[in-house]
Amino acid sequence: MNKTDVSDSVSETLLQEVRWNDQGLVAAVAQDATSGRVLMMAWMNAESLTETLDTGYATYWSRSRKQLWRKGESSGNRQKIQAVDLDCDGDAILLQVQQEGGIACHTGRNSCFYRRAEGGQWVETESVLKSPEEMYSGE
Amino acid sequence: MNKTDVSDSVSETLLQEVRWNDQGLVAAVAQDATSGRVLMMAWMNAESLTETLDTGYATYWSRSRKQLWRKGESSGNRQKIQAVDLDCDGDAILLQVQQEGGIACHTGRNSCFYRRAEGGQWVETESVLKSPEEMYSGE
Repeated sequence: MNKTDVSDSVSETLLQEVRWNDQGLVAAVAQDATSGRVLMMAWMNAESLTETLDTGYATYWSRSRKQLWRKGESSGNRQKIQAVDLDCDGDAILLQVQQEGGIACHTGRNSCFYRRAEGGQWVETESVLKSPEEMYSGE
Repeated sequence: MNKTDVSDSVSETLLQEVRWNDQGLVAAVAQDATSGRVLMMAWMNAESLTETLDTGYATYWSRSRKQLWRKGESSGNRQKIQAVDLDCDGDAILLQVQQEGGIACHTGRNSCFYRRAEGGQWVETESVLKSPEEMYSGE
C-alpha cells in the first residue's frame, strides 16, 4: 500500500503504529467528551479506523456480524468524533465522542457499563432511557 | 466451585456473568475517578478480578509475563478501586480508580493514551512526569 491509497486523514504510518491483534483488530473505548462517561468498548479493524477518521463518526467492526458497524446507523445514535487517541503499546484506542441521542447502549441506556459490583453481585445502576423496540423500530 | 470457595466480595454468579474470552480474559479499562481521564486498558482473568475486588486495588493479568500483575507493585503507582462496572455483553470491565502517584503509564505519563491522531499521524500530546528509570529504580 503506498501513500496514495490512504486518505488525507489516515497515513500508512498511522495504521502501522497500531498493534492489531491476530484477528486484525484493536480495542476501542468510547468516552463522552462532555460528561466524561465511558460509554462502551468495541473493536476496530484498519478499515473501520480509517472510516472513523475520514468521516468523523465512529465506525467499529462487528465481530458477530463480521462487517463494518457504523454506530447509530439504525438507531440514529451516532458518535461524532472529537479526538482519537492511541495508547502506549498501540493495542487500545480511545475515542472522545459526542453521543447523539444520549444513548450508546443497545439496551437503551446512556452507557453500556450499567452494572456495578456490589456485595459480590452485579447490580444495575442505570435505567433504560428508550426501549430497544422503540430504538430499532425503523429497521 | 461452590460458594465457600469464593470471597465475600466475589460470588460465583459475579464471575459467571463475565464473558471471558477464549483465553479466559476480559478487557479492563481504568478511569481516574476524580479527573475522568481514561488511564489505560489491560486484561483480567477470574483470579485478578477476584483479587481486585478482595483487596480494593487493581490487579490485572499480564499477557506477556503470563502472571498476575499487581499494578504499582514496583512503581508504587497503585490504583485504589472506587467502583467496578461490567458492560452490557459482559466482555468489558470499567474500573473507577484513584491513581496513586498520578501516573498510570509505564512511560511515566498520567495516561497511556498520550498519542492523538492529527493530520494523519499520531502526535504526542502529553509529557513524561517521571522517567521510567526513576520509577522502576527500586526493582
